[in-house]
Amino acid sequence: MLDLLRLTIADAADLLAQREISAVELTEAYLNRIAVHDARLNSFITVTADHALAQARIADDELARGVRRGPLHGIPVALKDLYDTAGIRTTAGSTFFADRVPDTDARAVTLLYQAGAVLLGKLNMHEWALGVTNINPHYGPSRNPWDTSRITGGSSGGAAAAVAAGLCLGALGSDTGGSIRIPASLCGIVGFKPTFGRVSLQGVVPLSWNLDHAGPMARTVTDAALLLQALAGYDPDDPASVAAPVDDLLADINAGVAGWRIALADDAHFGQADPDVLAAVHRAAAVFEELGARIERVDLGRGQEAAQMNALMTTSDAAAFHRDRLRSHPEKFGADVLARMERGAMFTSTEYILARRFQSEWRRQLERFFEQFDLLLTPTTPITAPVIEGLDSVEAARQLTRCTAPFNLAGLPALSLPCGVSAAGLPIGLQIVAAPWREARALRAGRAFEQATAWHHQTPPGW
Amino acid sequence: MLDLLRLTIADAADLLAQREISAVELTEAYLNRIAVHDARLNSFITVTADHALAQARIADDELARGVRRGPLHGIPVALKDLYDTAGIRTTAGSTFFADRVPDTDARAVTLLYQAGAVLLGKLNMHEWALGVTNINPHYGPSRNPWDTSRITGGSSGGAAAAVAAGLCLGALGSDTGGSIRIPASLCGIVGFKPTFGRVSLQGVVPLSWNLDHAGPMARTVTDAALLLQALAGYDPDDPASVAAPVDDLLADINAGVAGWRIALADDAHFGQADPDVLAAVHRAAAVFEELGARIERVDLGRGQEAAQMNALMTTSDAAAFHRDRLRSHPEKFGADVLARMERGAMFTSTEYILARRFQSEWRRQLERFFEQFDLLLTPTTPITAPVIEGLDSVEAARQLTRCTAPFNLAGLPALSLPCGVSAAGLPIGLQIVAAPWREARALRAGRAFEQATAWHHQTPPGW
Repeated sequence: MLDLLRLTIADAADLLAQREISAVELTEAYLNRIAVHDARLNSFITVTADHALAQARIADDELARGVRRGPLHGIPVALKDLYDTAGIRTTAGSTFFADRVPDTDARAVTLLYQAGAVLLGKLNMHEWALGVTNINPHYGPSRNPWDTSRITGGSSGGAAAAVAAGLCLGALGSDTGGSIRIPASLCGIVGFKPTFGRVSLQGVVPLSWNLDHAGPMARTVTDAALLLQALAGYDPDDPASVAAPVDDLLADINAGVAGWRIALADDAHFGQADPDVLAAVHRAAAVFEELGARIERVDLGRGQEAAQMNALMTTSDAAAFHRDRLRSHPEKFGADVLARMERGAMFTSTEYILARRFQSEWRRQLERFFEQFDLLLTPTTPITAPVIEGLDSVEAARQLTRCTAPFNLAGLPALSLPCGVSAAGLPIGLQIVAAPWREARALRAGRAFEQATAWHHQTPPGW
Repeated sequence: MLDLLRLTIADAADLLAQREISAVELTEAYLNRIAVHDARLNSFITVTADHALAQARIADDELARGVRRGPLHGIPVALKDLYDTAGIRTTAGSTFFADRVPDTDARAVTLLYQAGAVLLGKLNMHEWALGVTNINPHYGPSRNPWDTSRITGGSSGGAAAAVAAGLCLGALGSDTGGSIRIPASLCGIVGFKPTFGRVSLQGVVPLSWNLDHAGPMARTVTDAALLLQALAGYDPDDPASVAAPVDDLLADINAGVAGWRIALADDAHFGQADPDVLAAVHRAAAVFEELGARIERVDLGRGQEAAQMNALMTTSDAAAFHRDRLRSHPEKFGADVLARMERGAMFTSTEYILARRFQSEWRRQLERFFEQFDLLLTPTTPITAPVIEGLDSVEAARQLTRCTAPFNLAGLPALSLPCGVSAAGLPIGLQIVAAPWREARALRAGRAFEQATAWHHQTPPGW
């Protein structure tokens, strides 16, 4: 019997197009699985069953009439709960927004709907996206399907858990210091932060106007590419959006990496990780070498300062966005989020400006780096998922963001995909970074890696 | 007899190319005029006579060998004293830098030299470019050639006075809130602030990393275009530089404005000016109408807030750049500059971030505006040049920057050119603003205006 819950988006798209399954059938299977199993994971804040079934029926009607909107037509997906959804509450993981029901959809949601996707619900997240543990004091922690005593990572933790556990075929997350890639790494899925300005942030509750990136989370690199293809493009309603040409992300995805120059970060900042993680990343580099790439170990320099400046800007930007709430109702914030914002509010304009200046120089440094290299490899996270109980959230955040945050500051496309499993049986993520607007290059390498290895077939035990 | 001091760059370029004059002859004429007359104006901080003559001799040698680098070959120009010049002191109008001699040239200077230009010297400016009166406490005020009891405006005041009085054929200024356009307006010359990121700021002493623009000052629109053509282009060494295609600015400069949609700002912020100024700007709009353009009066909205946010960011950015000097030697700053920087240092990161957010929105608002219009007209300055004696520098700065600063915040190209003379006999400037990267459009309109009117032929009485 066909296991609807083990499909990829690409597989499901073919079956839907050939009418071997219906969108309603597929949607019902996922809704049922969420209803039965999500209590263990707490990955959804809101399930939109009626909405999903209505969308699935329309998708089926269209297919019956010969109208197919593309590869996402009839595909059940879910959204981190900071994408505005018309008529569906959007909490941003906060009690301030517990009853907030937007009138309009975020631009990315509109694009998903136009592509025919079906919305299963809204996913748990770190409160206001300002943290990476996803231990949400208001909606409960999301739990890692590989070991429910452990964190998913965050802030798009519900999204990573739901994709990993087969509660949806794909999801949209957002990433300001690693919030797509970190939970993707800790939950063993694919997460992709595109170039800053590539996907509209219109209607996405902000964390930082300078560092937020919307992007896809899925089981495979191809699925991430299919989602991103539907989202990418200029939006005049998002001040951060950039009118850059959009590549066909699928065109050359299978073309391999022969002849590419790939750097492996091997300095004190990026090269320091748990032995299991480091070994997996080095094995991944060897895989690329076998595929015909030239691997060179590099010292990037300034990674630590880049991570620190990213944190300074994130907390300052968050404090600016939330200034009225911080004044009027500080007690409604979770303790870790309040502490971060209060620290952010203390920075002077001088400190902030010097961080911005560092950002400009860091971006330029990496642009030059990518004149020499096609891609850069680092661990996504230097550690695997820690346990929830007794977690030191400050230290965890510092560790988890150290390899991801520098590429928010630079605004570069960065893909995380599974590259191993630790001795303790936890997934390990590989980060592949590319030059600005070169999403296709990162995806192509990720796809080559998947074709040469089997890590993406690993699923959490029992799921 | 040919009056070498009444030439335009375009005229001089032809005469040099035809070898009717030599670069040495031309350079000597300007050096002589500076020596005899600049005591009245105080427009130069440093005159580089030997350097200029050496460059002129090389230019002549090259011409004798049939090598002509382009229209700036052999043309005597001068630089606001914040462009780094190898071996020539660069003070930025400050005592901190009184003896500072850079080892290398600013990128813009390199480009001017490569184009064959001859450097006459370094021009007086408002201290650190942080002010618009050009009353410099260390190097003395620059004086307006139309009435030496009056300010030139600033911060590129020496440049405007020198061009207006025929002490050089053209100059480079810099503009963070109006510092090219304001003195151009008050001294009756052409000044052009290009799009943010168009001309490299590498080697230009910063005022604000977010709002600084390098650009040309000259007697005619064509001359400004000739200078800008030599400067425009991407520079990987300037983090603010943008890799945008560079138009041929001269190609269509004579093609007129027939059929163009031109907006005339007519709201409470941009439409408020001295009666003489307002009348001249309205007459200029009527000229464009006669040339076949459609004029529409518009309410831009938010101009006042844009000017305020520009001031907040400028003073904060300046305080960040000068933080060590502010700590160690506050007594070495002029009173007005110190007060501005101290105010700038007081802003919190939240205030700064909200200003940046306003900047993004304002830029997007104007990008949309320019989908409807080819150009926007405003007064450059709502007043003509005030007298130096007893000037209230705070109120003067507020008035002088009100129409210019909003277009620094938006980073749009903005041209100022003479459009009249007040009842008191002082020049009036018209500001022509265009969409990002549409410098050619502003220049073409300015050139059409010059062809239809005679204001650019007016020179200061006695000069």
